[in-house]
Amino acid sequence: MNLKVKRSILKNIRIFSLKMENIKKKKKIVVVGGGTGSFTVLFGLKKYDDIELTAVVSMADDGGSTGILRDEQGVLPPGDIRQCLVALSEESGLMRELFNFRFSGGRLSGHNFGNLFISAIEKISGDFNKALEMISDILKVKGEVFPVTLDKVRLVAELKNGKKLYGEGDISEYQMISRFGVKKIYLDKKAKANKKALAAIKEADLIVVGPGSLYSSLIPNFLLSDMKRAFLNSKAKKVFVCNIMNKYGHTDNFTVLDFVEKMEKFIKKDIFDFVVYNTKLPAKSLLKKYIDEGEPVFWDKLPKFSKGKFIGEKLLAEKRQKKMKGDILRRSFIRHDSDKLAKVIMSIINH
Amino acid sequence: MNLKVKRSILKNIRIFSLKMENIKKKKKIVVVGGGTGSFTVLFGLKKYDDIELTAVVSMADDGGSTGILRDEQGVLPPGDIRQCLVALSEESGLMRELFNFRFSGGRLSGHNFGNLFISAIEKISGDFNKALEMISDILKVKGEVFPVTLDKVRLVAELKNGKKLYGEGDISEYQMISRFGVKKIYLDKKAKANKKALAAIKEADLIVVGPGSLYSSLIPNFLLSDMKRAFLNSKAKKVFVCNIMNKYGHTDNFTVLDFVEKMEKFIKKDIFDFVVYNTKLPAKSLLKKYIDEGEPVFWDKLPKFSKGKFIGEKLLAEKRQKKMKGDILRRSFIRHDSDKLAKVIMSIINH
Repeated sequence: MNLKVKRSILKNIRIFSLKMENIKKKKKIVVVGGGTGSFTVLFGLKKYDDIELTAVVSMADDGGSTGILRDEQGVLPPGDIRQCLVALSEESGLMRELFNFRFSGGRLSGHNFGNLFISAIEKISGDFNKALEMISDILKVKGEVFPVTLDKVRLVAELKNGKKLYGEGDISEYQMISRFGVKKIYLDKKAKANKKALAAIKEADLIVVGPGSLYSSLIPNFLLSDMKRAFLNSKAKKVFVCNIMNKYGHTDNFTVLDFVEKMEKFIKKDIFDFVVYNTKLPAKSLLKKYIDEGEPVFWDKLPKFSKGKFIGEKLLAEKRQKKMKGDILRRSFIRHDSDKLAKVIMSIINH
Repeated sequence: MNLKVKRSILKNIRIFSLKMENIKKKKKIVVVGGGTGSFTVLFGLKKYDDIELTAVVSMADDGGSTGILRDEQGVLPPGDIRQCLVALSEESGLMRELFNFRFSGGRLSGHNFGNLFISAIEKISGDFNKALEMISDILKVKGEVFPVTLDKVRLVAELKNGKKLYGEGDISEYQMISRFGVKKIYLDKKAKANKKALAAIKEADLIVVGPGSLYSSLIPNFLLSDMKRAFLNSKAKKVFVCNIMNKYGHTDNFTVLDFVEKMEKFIKKDIFDFVVYNTKLPAKSLLKKYIDEGEPVFWDKLPKFSKGKFIGEKLLAEKRQKKMKGDILRRSFIRHDSDKLAKVIMSIINH
């Protein structure tokens, strides 16, 4: 072997091991939640190249376009999944807009195109995972999106006054939950968590839960016993991102601490290593628009000696973003700034 | 300049001119028609690499899913365009199946997914061409598909008894056209042909018209005066592909010659250089299934001295193809064999 060949081999070995190191170095972040909240987290984290991103998505959604598709087409709920796919998409604006496009007028009114897309592929292939793969391809999705379960489940909330609410849609709309109190919340049948979601949780370096609706997007993920177990057993740093706004009838006057305690009650006491919350109040003009929906989540009464568990930052999105046709930004014009939120999460993982 | 460099330059020039020659050599074929008929022609021709393929598609369709989209969403008719895009797609089976997928049950019933796709992009971008580009990309379309016009037109047929039929859907379903006779067929308003379609017609080496429904897929293309003019002025060889089956109420007992004469009456006498027709009768069991739709087109009484204008071949598709979910094969189980038809067309262009 001459010197030139030797050198070339050595050089290639060096490049290869550098690449391997690089692959090894990538930390794994899993984002657990529903649609809109996870969108914000994923959209910010997508910009970092030194992490591997996975979204684990609640499958209890049955409102709106998603609900009609579940009922009439017998498919799994596509709505929240879609939002996560769009968040991680590296495709052009038009393609992302297409997935969020909602028909108006006529019999198609209210139907979201991305939902129809996911459901049509599921109908043809009989395989929700296949649908996700195909759409991930088309949308050039960076990272992976897994439904928390592939079983068709419906959420049930039993209130302390005896009333039962069936389905995420009804639960989400019912405005007396906080008045009567939740006695029990459960899935209508025994279901298994998606193995891919479990594997992601197991291998994660950091897991973000939230933001999102407490009863309809966050808690349903942990009602699957194997999912809850995987979460408890995971060595990942566990981060709870608290909502900026409360929701009347659901979390009236909740503080950051109330949110954490409620979540931990459903999972395990002190399970979260970090709680990230916003300390910038929205402008009064914006709050006026929210007058029917809820008040800000305040951060008073936080425990004084919590070893840095509570991380308060100005996380409010202040620039009014260009309105996207679709539903994501319309629904949440008081929301986290994706970039600022991602920065806090990245500082936790790199700590 | 040393010898090595000179040689390299000369070599590159040679490669370049070979490539140029190759590009120059590619003959241009334009297929004019509607959905199902053009699908068959395009699907066969797609397999030839030494031609450039363009589909020019009638835009008078207003039946079924397409009709609902036109009425309720105010979009251009996507149905026939979709079939041509799928025919030219080099994507996997699943993606093509997706574009032909039809929802059943509930409010989405009858809606074709590909149609929704095209319409959603048109709604977002306000640009039908943009929609076509994007979908051509996703479907990996070989060649190009152009609507014959981008104006929103509706077909009107005035019968000799005074009755007027509005829209392709109604015309297509009306079963007394041949009894009363068509006095006049026209578009409901002045419309311009699509410039891209006109350019394709102008530059074509060969233009195929048909197969397809006479009044609803073929003739409407030539009701646009600039399209008709471009066709008349084109130096391309002009080939008419005759239907295998007649349609009751529209072309009762038509022979091949009747078809050609009817078409030429709308365009110009003796405009077609070649007429391709099938000489293999379908099996009786298949004809039974067609009993409500029509009888075979016979090829008797053809002019004896027509200098090879009439080309009769066994063009019937004999293998029962795997049923695709979607509407293409269901609608036309008596149809041309794509490969055999393409072979005849290629023999004409290479003659």
